[in-house]
Amino acid sequence: MPHITLPDGLPGITGPFAFRPDTARPMRALAEILLRGPNTLSSADREIIATYTSSQNECHFCQTSHGAAAAHHLGGPSELADNFALIAQIKRDFESAPITAKLKALLNIAGHVQQGGKRVTSDDIARARKEGATDIEIHDTVLIAAAFCMYNRYVDGLATWAPQEQEAYIPMGARMAHEGYVAAPVQNPARDHEAVTV
Amino acid sequence: MPHITLPDGLPGITGPFAFRPDTARPMRALAEILLRGPNTLSSADREIIATYTSSQNECHFCQTSHGAAAAHHLGGPSELADNFALIAQIKRDFESAPITAKLKALLNIAGHVQQGGKRVTSDDIARARKEGATDIEIHDTVLIAAAFCMYNRYVDGLATWAPQEQEAYIPMGARMAHEGYVAAPVQNPARDHEAVTV
Repeated sequence: MPHITLPDGLPGITGPFAFRPDTARPMRALAEILLRGPNTLSSADREIIATYTSSQNECHFCQTSHGAAAAHHLGGPSELADNFALIAQIKRDFESAPITAKLKALLNIAGHVQQGGKRVTSDDIARARKEGATDIEIHDTVLIAAAFCMYNRYVDGLATWAPQEQEAYIPMGARMAHEGYVAAPVQNPARDHEAVTV
Repeated sequence: MPHITLPDGLPGITGPFAFRPDTARPMRALAEILLRGPNTLSSADREIIATYTSSQNECHFCQTSHGAAAAHHLGGPSELADNFALIAQIKRDFESAPITAKLKALLNIAGHVQQGGKRVTSDDIARARKEGATDIEIHDTVLIAAAFCMYNRYVDGLATWAPQEQEAYIPMGARMAHEGYVAAPVQNPARDHEAVTV
């Protein structure tokens, strides 16, 4: 049971977002620009960084929903099962996963940010640069990981409710990938809660 | 030296804010509403929660600048030295500091959020309620602590530069307390960087 009284039936972060729309607004805007805004990193890669950080923070809702968003970015419905398997492998041991050396270097930075800002070393940065990462890609990796240290603590610090089974996150991940994190038009407020998870 | 090339002479978070204005905007807006927006918790109490969380994350820039903002909220120039001493005592051991039982209960929650969302217990929440904390006050405490786990990691994960001595933070804290976190009007862009630390 959540630590405070939240609207019924809204999973994970969507409960506190509905409870406090004034703080939800900038939190949604930040997720939108970090994960779906114009960027030389693909949305799939950025969602993978978010997913990995959330898994290191052991946040079930965030790692499963953003993992589903990443899976949707990576391909169509027929590829979903393979994509979910890849995400699971990245969470378990990204160094051995079939992803680019650059994404591995960025995940290494994200993992250190999760442990604490000072854990990011010059060697971590040099490794990412060697694989072609730019200043803004390093910046965004640090900020995505830092931001998910906020979202994860928000979700779990209030003891929000979330579905356990991965199936529930498939349509949620599709909305996150294709409709995004900013509220839908006001004429359909009921839909807002569905579309704007982080 | 920062891990990426940031504008010269901007301390702490103001460097990456100037580097990436698109992500700075929602991050500033979130700080403004959490720390200075309408609330039954005073801005002093909210800045103390931010300061304590930042000290637990060992973020020098954030704990010193927000400590200065809290000191300014607590009184005028003649009281600053006493207020700085109180902030130092709260960071060292808030349970023995001369603050309300309610603020102690909220700092206890913030400290657990800093360690990880799941570390917040029903007992932590019951203690806060017993001291009169409402749902929204508990919500905002969790979110302030969670948000500073982001800001702190952003500042230190990029290895930003910051002044060491507390004196440098006195005018900064005054601006944070009295002018806030959202950018000043566009006609004075040079001032933006000064006024909008988090």
